[in-house]
Amino acid sequence: MRATFIYAAGDVRVTDAPDPRIVEPTDALVQVTRACVCGSDLHPYHSAPETPGGKSIGHELIGVVTEIGSGVKTLAKGDFVIAPFAISCGVCEFCRADLQTSCVNGGFWNDANLGTAGCQAEAVRVPLADGTLVTVPGIDPATADESLLASLLTLSDVYGTGWHAAHRAGVTAGDTVAVIGDGAVGLLAVLSAQQLGAERIILMGRHRARTDLGREFGATDVVAERGDHGINAVLELTKGGAGKVLEAVGHLPAYEQAIGIVRPGGVISRVGVPQYTDGPIGWSFFGKNATLTGGPAPVRAYIQQLLPSVLDGTVNPGKVFDRTVTIQDTPQAYAAMDAREALKVMIKP
Amino acid sequence: MRATFIYAAGDVRVTDAPDPRIVEPTDALVQVTRACVCGSDLHPYHSAPETPGGKSIGHELIGVVTEIGSGVKTLAKGDFVIAPFAISCGVCEFCRADLQTSCVNGGFWNDANLGTAGCQAEAVRVPLADGTLVTVPGIDPATADESLLASLLTLSDVYGTGWHAAHRAGVTAGDTVAVIGDGAVGLLAVLSAQQLGAERIILMGRHRARTDLGREFGATDVVAERGDHGINAVLELTKGGAGKVLEAVGHLPAYEQAIGIVRPGGVISRVGVPQYTDGPIGWSFFGKNATLTGGPAPVRAYIQQLLPSVLDGTVNPGKVFDRTVTIQDTPQAYAAMDAREALKVMIKP
Repeated sequence: MRATFIYAAGDVRVTDAPDPRIVEPTDALVQVTRACVCGSDLHPYHSAPETPGGKSIGHELIGVVTEIGSGVKTLAKGDFVIAPFAISCGVCEFCRADLQTSCVNGGFWNDANLGTAGCQAEAVRVPLADGTLVTVPGIDPATADESLLASLLTLSDVYGTGWHAAHRAGVTAGDTVAVIGDGAVGLLAVLSAQQLGAERIILMGRHRARTDLGREFGATDVVAERGDHGINAVLELTKGGAGKVLEAVGHLPAYEQAIGIVRPGGVISRVGVPQYTDGPIGWSFFGKNATLTGGPAPVRAYIQQLLPSVLDGTVNPGKVFDRTVTIQDTPQAYAAMDAREALKVMIKP
Repeated sequence: MRATFIYAAGDVRVTDAPDPRIVEPTDALVQVTRACVCGSDLHPYHSAPETPGGKSIGHELIGVVTEIGSGVKTLAKGDFVIAPFAISCGVCEFCRADLQTSCVNGGFWNDANLGTAGCQAEAVRVPLADGTLVTVPGIDPATADESLLASLLTLSDVYGTGWHAAHRAGVTAGDTVAVIGDGAVGLLAVLSAQQLGAERIILMGRHRARTDLGREFGATDVVAERGDHGINAVLELTKGGAGKVLEAVGHLPAYEQAIGIVRPGGVISRVGVPQYTDGPIGWSFFGKNATLTGGPAPVRAYIQQLLPSVLDGTVNPGKVFDRTVTIQDTPQAYAAMDAREALKVMIKP
């Protein structure tokens, strides 16, 4: 099969790779219907060390089960499934608490412990398949509407991640919410805040096409300024800060912005994987009695809840995809997202 | 009157100072029945710059109202009151939300904006007296039991601060709670966690007399080790970490310990004023989906709730006081606490 590997910063290639096969009885094999490139894939795209053999990459997919191990109980060949970006057993303490990203038996794609490869490929092996995969009955990927497939694909990461930001912040009816970042996760955090009843949603971003989509998803205000200017703009709009701040970037300046705009007693909910180790948590944060929460989203926990509105077209999170490539052109997808020519690129193997 | 001033690190003196007087119509004057030295007073005791005129100090007191301004509505001369460590108006957005430490009109003791002095004195001027002070009817300080006065004094800071840690962490019945720090606030965080129903309370501290009092307040386990040894001990006791961690120290190693022992999905609640600006909030924290909360305690919000159990003797938070001095001996109180010869020293003017 064809699969995507990263060899160094900026060096992504699609090559032949062995077809996946069942290793453990709890495995399933899935033929990939759609995969995509994530904003977080751009981090290794910027900084991956040279890796002569290449490193498999990708962690978002929808697909069809083609084979199951002897221990798989809830899946059958032919099932259409959404694969979350984390592998989870479904039975441990953390899975039962809907914190599947802390599963004691699970892990991630491209995970040496689990022997998983990446999802920007024609097929994948899925360990702990019963716990990991979510079936969506009644979908035939060959005939399904392209926009529906796009929206279902967002449930494997970016929509669930945006939802996690809003859910962990405790967004509720009437809230004033600020969302930092106009990438796919930020825009879907806007959509999630809107679904949870936020009255005012301030989107901080400076790419017009993206913030326009943010307005379509429910943003009531857009602040394009950054740094102190951006902070002052939000403080002015909110007369003292937003009670809920959703940080969907992962770089230190975004977190610093969050501290600047959070209202005393408010919450900063981060879902952008922090590209820093230390950050300000002294008086500037403590003095406000602010709360910092968030983390890698247990999207598995949210799929069943978010699915009905996707299936009936109430929401269209798939609008974050603005380009589609074949698997062979995956390197171009990275380049386009890195150059901000594309917001999020779908891969059709 | 006699009042306490700090002139430099390690240099605390008691000198004559002008009697306080009413400045604003919303002021009250209070004669101090008991004041005390706080663990947080030791920070300037370690690091205060040289201040030739001296800086007034102290922020905990109970006392009797001796005079009220023309605008004071809820207090009368002779009222026995508890003064929280923050001055608050009682009517702004944050006061109404029980976040009096963020009051837009208030501030603290020794606050240039408000013109307040410190409480380690014979008398104080209290701005925004209606919003700040809490009356305790039926107490005559001249005849009240010494242990009751001690417990009432803890409501001005340390008990409310320990309570804030537990309350903000969301401690509830059956919880496993770890408390970092065996100072007065840590010990009262133990008491608070016990009152909120925690099943297991692990106290991290290494001063036997203090941890013994912690056991009396409800600690089920004591971990004396620090650093990685301490972290491993708690991870072993809890099989993977405590769901609620209350950090009552304020130094970076205590926060690092909190990150090490918090269970995935758990909460770190800080009430020790951070003596650092930056700290680890990258993957070690984010990856666990942990939450960081806490801040300067709005003790004003908790006094009415905590008072009945203090008045009827159900709890005796005043046991944290293990020494009493006259106002003249306040410098010795600092020295004794700094040398850890005393846990917390009461001042009887």
